[in-house]
Amino acid sequence: MSFDPSTLTYTEAGLVPVIAQDAASGEVLMFAWMNAEAVARTLATGRVTYWSRSRAEFWEKGATSGHHQRLVEMRIDCDRDCLLVLVEQTGAACHTGRRSCFFTAVRDGNEVEILTPMA
Amino acid sequence: MSFDPSTLTYTEAGLVPVIAQDAASGEVLMFAWMNAEAVARTLATGRVTYWSRSRAEFWEKGATSGHHQRLVEMRIDCDRDCLLVLVEQTGAACHTGRRSCFFTAVRDGNEVEILTPMA
Repeated sequence: MSFDPSTLTYTEAGLVPVIAQDAASGEVLMFAWMNAEAVARTLATGRVTYWSRSRAEFWEKGATSGHHQRLVEMRIDCDRDCLLVLVEQTGAACHTGRRSCFFTAVRDGNEVEILTPMA
Repeated sequence: MSFDPSTLTYTEAGLVPVIAQDAASGEVLMFAWMNAEAVARTLATGRVTYWSRSRAEFWEKGATSGHHQRLVEMRIDCDRDCLLVLVEQTGAACHTGRRSCFFTAVRDGNEVEILTPMA
């Protein structure tokens, strides 16, 4: 069946949540949002492109930072309201310079930093 | 620093998105939501507990299906508006009987099923 981005279920704001995972290591890198056009651009170009809610514009990952995400595969969940993108991540996925945005863990009731910024 | 669920950033509906990942294999299993009380219950009990938006009630994963998620570690992203829970998943995470909810992939422009229900 040919994939049509309009068949996904979007929020009232026209967005779908997206999980980015390192295709090689399996590490979950970040979480962001796409609209239907961002989904189409990502598939057409192979460059993962989100919708920035704060800037209200398309956000081609790495366009300014150089930390590109090349799409390896896009997956859709059972409810068609969440996407998983497997990517080849150049450098840090997180704006803090860390490989992953999920760099804080709750251990024994305390928050601990488990990743430091990449060199 | 002691972790306080109220320090997370919630949507207007009081929810935070949650990614569940198999702690052993790294497979992304599902995506759901928690409110602050669900976060607290998950940490207190070690049984991953979501907030069901459709039923408007707490949803202890596996309470009816037997497909429990035991919390291995909770992680917080840089913006404190998304959680990653590493879990030990009993059986299928997806209500369709598949290990993961992300069982459809877009390949060569077509949707293909990449996971079948568990035996």
